[in-house]
Amino acid sequence: MSEYESPSSIHLSNLIKKTKEKGYDGLLLTEPNNIKYLSNYDTKSFAFAILSDNPVVYATELDLENAKLNSQIEVRKFESLSALNDDLVKEGLTNFAIESTLPISLYEKFSDKFSGKLNLTIDHLIEDERMVKSYDEIVKIQEATKIAQKAFTDLDVLSKYDSGASEWEVSYELGRLMRDYGAESESFDTIVTSGSNSSLPHAEPEHKELETPILIDWGAKYKGYCSDNTRTIVFSEKQQEIFDIVLEAHDKTIESIKEGMKACEVDKIARDIIAEYGYGDKYIHSTGHSLGLDIHENPNVSTRTETVLEKNMFITVEPGIYLEGNFGVRVEDTVLIDKKAHVIGDLPRIII
Amino acid sequence: MSEYESPSSIHLSNLIKKTKEKGYDGLLLTEPNNIKYLSNYDTKSFAFAILSDNPVVYATELDLENAKLNSQIEVRKFESLSALNDDLVKEGLTNFAIESTLPISLYEKFSDKFSGKLNLTIDHLIEDERMVKSYDEIVKIQEATKIAQKAFTDLDVLSKYDSGASEWEVSYELGRLMRDYGAESESFDTIVTSGSNSSLPHAEPEHKELETPILIDWGAKYKGYCSDNTRTIVFSEKQQEIFDIVLEAHDKTIESIKEGMKACEVDKIARDIIAEYGYGDKYIHSTGHSLGLDIHENPNVSTRTETVLEKNMFITVEPGIYLEGNFGVRVEDTVLIDKKAHVIGDLPRIII
Repeated sequence: MSEYESPSSIHLSNLIKKTKEKGYDGLLLTEPNNIKYLSNYDTKSFAFAILSDNPVVYATELDLENAKLNSQIEVRKFESLSALNDDLVKEGLTNFAIESTLPISLYEKFSDKFSGKLNLTIDHLIEDERMVKSYDEIVKIQEATKIAQKAFTDLDVLSKYDSGASEWEVSYELGRLMRDYGAESESFDTIVTSGSNSSLPHAEPEHKELETPILIDWGAKYKGYCSDNTRTIVFSEKQQEIFDIVLEAHDKTIESIKEGMKACEVDKIARDIIAEYGYGDKYIHSTGHSLGLDIHENPNVSTRTETVLEKNMFITVEPGIYLEGNFGVRVEDTVLIDKKAHVIGDLPRIII
Repeated sequence: MSEYESPSSIHLSNLIKKTKEKGYDGLLLTEPNNIKYLSNYDTKSFAFAILSDNPVVYATELDLENAKLNSQIEVRKFESLSALNDDLVKEGLTNFAIESTLPISLYEKFSDKFSGKLNLTIDHLIEDERMVKSYDEIVKIQEATKIAQKAFTDLDVLSKYDSGASEWEVSYELGRLMRDYGAESESFDTIVTSGSNSSLPHAEPEHKELETPILIDWGAKYKGYCSDNTRTIVFSEKQQEIFDIVLEAHDKTIESIKEGMKACEVDKIARDIIAEYGYGDKYIHSTGHSLGLDIHENPNVSTRTETVLEKNMFITVEPGIYLEGNFGVRVEDTVLIDKKAHVIGDLPRIII
């Protein structure tokens, strides 16, 4: 067993309790980050976790040493799906909640092919549990953000622009700095996009010299947890005009956020401001999302998300305006929900 | 439309034909690499493709500009699952083959929640089509391999060892060199592991000075296609002894491979050689896997894979011996199947 590092113990007992209250014998999990969340074991292969009174993780032979070194719950060797199925039936565990992402082929194998004795129901128990972060998780997300923002500051994008650096060089150096400062990796493929490409919200860095504006969307992963920020550096008057609208949407949305609001209400604030300036149809994505072990977690912050924001949830606030074929602007911060929203980190929104 | 670059046209017509022959109205796809394979559109969001006489890809608003710039098949805007469901029913398309990886929640939404009019059946049509590569795909995998091997050679791992470099520095520099030489990214997180950590087949590079042996498993991605190699550099007599066994398994397996063999027969050759030397229980993974747009594709090369190898399939051959708590050795090349196996690239198996 490794030194205790995961947030699992509180969440584990919460989940066992809720699983029972809803009448399930257990929770059957396959998503690597759900397994990591509960066991601290980061699978490099595929794995199953069975969460009941006696939580167990099944690891493949390839990954067994890794599992035994890191898991805080019992580890068994995964032999085959039918052997696992037999184990469960033998232990009287037949009525399971499953993740909504379980692949249909596994679902069919468990529910039909073997004994027909397992009853599997999609339930968002674990997605819901993961929404509200523990103290330990909050600290990791703060640290990830700190690393990412220090790397961005020290990179000095404007000097890179002056020296004729390419998008991918900037992206690569940012990745290197984040690792130098303690990140294990990027939390997603860094977006460094400039000129007309910036109107594609998820453009990949190209081997071409930086143009203007320069949009950078990046994050660090620290002890498994993600950060997420975007900054856009503008140069022309038109770019500045669009930037000011996006920044107003960003700032006013963050000022308005407090626990008890619905996620769709947050989205509406940003969307309405951009629409007032006549760019409603150029705001082509949601206002944000939560993050944690995954870079995209529930709740999403979209026009349709009815989830009520609770204390110790994180969401990103990332309004943008995308003028197709011309340029795009986005400004993003991650906030922690409480009586008001606390912006994580202290990176200036305006880079000059 | 971008310049024609994807292998899609041959595969597209093959798949439409096979889909009809099996009595489906079409194929419903959600895996990003399946969508890229058929349309050349690399989704940054989520997307659906419907493959029938009139192939269509549905992209979210966020990703619509990207889809229109790159897709070689019709692009429509994705509004909602129920709108998509309605479209399909309206066009008389109700009987679909689906991927085995479709998430259970999407499956349920399509098949029950809306109209109950869609009939979805898991079928490996596209996985099977993707196994045999077109000329264009072969060239891309060769090029990816060339880039990755040149980067490894120019990196000169032994000089890094002599200068006291850390695992992660080597991993990072290898990634940078691959990009310098034209890769868009690594085909997976580079494994640079050394000393006792090398007994974990998928160890992550650590911020610690290289020990011995040094095991590096890496690949480049070029125009979407992956390469995959492993080299282990040994120093002590015991390491050399284990290396020689692994190399014999690697070489003799590759010499034996020819079209018409079953994948499990390939696995058995490597496994038997390692077992003869008394290390059967230390060979804790499959002998290989295919690759392409994904780093792991069908067929797997395991004890249980009955798939017959055909001309223009790729497989990796990567036997290994893992002495828990002590060290591990693996040697891996990617081969193209024909009357015999052609090793891709020309990297020496022994690094001294």
